Amino acid sequence: MTFNLVKTDGAARRGRLVTPHGIVETPAFMPVGTRGTVRSLGPDDLAAAGSQIVLANTYHLFMRPGAAVVRELGGLHRFMAWPGPILTDSGGFQVWSLSKLAVVDDEGVRFRSPVDGSLHALTPEISIDVQHALGADVIHPLDEFLAHPATREDIERSLERTLRWARRSQVAHARGPGGQALFGIVQGGAYADVRARAARETVALGFDGYAIGGMAVGEPKPIMYELTATVASLLPAGQPRYLMGVGKPEDLVESVARGIDLFDCVLPTRNARNGQCFTWDGALTIKQARYERDPAPLDAECGCYACRHFSRAYLRHLYMADELLAYRLLSLHNVSFFHGLMTAMRAAVDAGAFAPFRARFFARYAVSSEFVSREHISSAEA
Amino acid sequence: MTFNLVKTDGAARRGRLVTPHGIVETPAFMPVGTRGTVRSLGPDDLAAAGSQIVLANTYHLFMRPGAAVVRELGGLHRFMAWPGPILTDSGGFQVWSLSKLAVVDDEGVRFRSPVDGSLHALTPEISIDVQHALGADVIHPLDEFLAHPATREDIERSLERTLRWARRSQVAHARGPGGQALFGIVQGGAYADVRARAARETVALGFDGYAIGGMAVGEPKPIMYELTATVASLLPAGQPRYLMGVGKPEDLVESVARGIDLFDCVLPTRNARNGQCFTWDGALTIKQARYERDPAPLDAECGCYACRHFSRAYLRHLYMADELLAYRLLSLHNVSFFHGLMTAMRAAVDAGAFAPFRARFFARYAVSSEFVSREHISSAEA
Repeated sequence: MTFNLVKTDGAARRGRLVTPHGIVETPAFMPVGTRGTVRSLGPDDLAAAGSQIVLANTYHLFMRPGAAVVRELGGLHRFMAWPGPILTDSGGFQVWSLSKLAVVDDEGVRFRSPVDGSLHALTPEISIDVQHALGADVIHPLDEFLAHPATREDIERSLERTLRWARRSQVAHARGPGGQALFGIVQGGAYADVRARAARETVALGFDGYAIGGMAVGEPKPIMYELTATVASLLPAGQPRYLMGVGKPEDLVESVARGIDLFDCVLPTRNARNGQCFTWDGALTIKQARYERDPAPLDAECGCYACRHFSRAYLRHLYMADELLAYRLLSLHNVSFFHGLMTAMRAAVDAGAFAPFRARFFARYAVSSEFVSREHISSAEA
Repeated sequence: MTFNLVKTDGAARRGRLVTPHGIVETPAFMPVGTRGTVRSLGPDDLAAAGSQIVLANTYHLFMRPGAAVVRELGGLHRFMAWPGPILTDSGGFQVWSLSKLAVVDDEGVRFRSPVDGSLHALTPEISIDVQHALGADVIHPLDEFLAHPATREDIERSLERTLRWARRSQVAHARGPGGQALFGIVQGGAYADVRARAARETVALGFDGYAIGGMAVGEPKPIMYELTATVASLLPAGQPRYLMGVGKPEDLVESVARGIDLFDCVLPTRNARNGQCFTWDGALTIKQARYERDPAPLDAECGCYACRHFSRAYLRHLYMADELLAYRLLSLHNVSFFHGLMTAMRAAVDAGAFAPFRARFFARYAVSSEFVSREHISSAEA
């Protein structure tokens, strides 16, 4: 994997990530294919929506159908018929958020499968082995995650463990088949100085790129933005930066402004299933009675399949009747919107005009007051 | 609408139905788009699967979103973004099967909406008015349907009512916008002589085509085939014949052999949602453990999107994980299979080789012993 920093505009960056399965123009948004499928969308839909790279959850695939099955079927790209780049997380966050019986010690995590109640262990070595079997282009070391708020003492102790696990993951990764990039994960909770130390020590270990983990988990949004800026400023300019689990459209804009290259979030697909559709004016809720006879598309500026063919009235009808096509069409639109937003940001950085883009975006986009925490999203998605 | 009988081979027929929205090569299968959407499939999927004409249920669209909304949004073709031919039924069968509180008299049916409990009436005139608003290429008169088994006396009394309603429907249709074909519906229960009288009297009224209703509702399959042959033999050769709500692949073959041109059934989509997939060897149940590591496509001879890209192992994984993509891919495959079966039958009739085709089909296709009644299907679909 190589990363070329093409252009900067303030802290905003325009880059190009070259992976064994294709190129990712950054900043980029990754739709979340939790179980090896972006919920309700096929690979044909993802390609049409403009997806360049897809995230899959190691934890979910580890539980079902299992790493051995995916390896036997030719790896995750072939299994899910997505020929482009794939990124997997380490599974740590999901163990924490989905397995009520998780027991963490220095070795790793023991937990019960929510699928069948069976007992499992996830260690740094097992996580890397599973991710080798899955074969994603970008993989991650197991990290420890503490719920917000946590004490400084707990966060510092947890950071030490995450760093030890990072070193063990590097050793395990060195035994792998090669061709997969390993990103380090910067933790540190809501303490700026711990975040800074986490960034420096993770960078000192040396990874192919850097993820910022444990964000958007309930901390106030100004603090999330500030921590993002702090960490990003300490990461090497020539390597990609990935803000895990973020976020809402306004978060993407604010985080690109602070130097982030990659994002993932279940928001466009999960909210589609709840009837929320994103537009350049803000989000709309398709189930509202005002759309019953509305002949307009979801977003007149959107070129997605849903907007080219269907009225809000029809989409509302499908949604109210609980028709499965509603979930596909609304998800397709939302993912297209998120990619369109990233495309617009890339063009703005290319043109050296990110600041006016950002101003125009916020002048028009109605930011929802609802704060979406990562914790809430992940529970709902599982 | 015009119908050209292109070729016959025994009782099997090759025809071409020319409608205002396109041509239907017959014999043809119509997927069921109950609420203005074939469950889990988009118009893009239907086109890719080879659908020529889609059925929509007047009853469901009458209940939600209502005829006025569909008309205001430009009619059903535009509403559901299906530019090809559409056929609507009269709503009579669904009132009977879905509205527990239905009260039938000579005027029509009064019933409560399962959506919101509101009171509605469906008369021959209202059904035609609603179908005019929807704007399908082929529409149907309200008919009365009696559950099987019914006494000869009840069936004969019911037939008289259906014939009276057919005449009222013709009068109502004459006031319509034009451009829509009206098919007559032949009822008559499981009594061959009543069916024959129903066929003769319906033909005497003069319609653009003829539907055979009240079949596959629990009567033994040999009787259904025999009644189909009896009725078909009494219908005009130069007009299309539609066997409503049928059926399984073997029923399609047996009914084409008896002179039927058009079919509809929820089977390919409903059974897909239950994990049943059709192949030339018979049906398979994707949830079986034997498919857990099976790298083969559902059907090696199928060229559908699901079979071109995904293994049985992946489709099983999606199905077991309750992923929405499973329903789309399995439905897409099943509808493609049904259309492929019709394509093969058309080619066989074209080649004057329907009998050997039929023999080869049954030599290979494992007919399931499960008898699928229309009644059961319709309840499940609703």
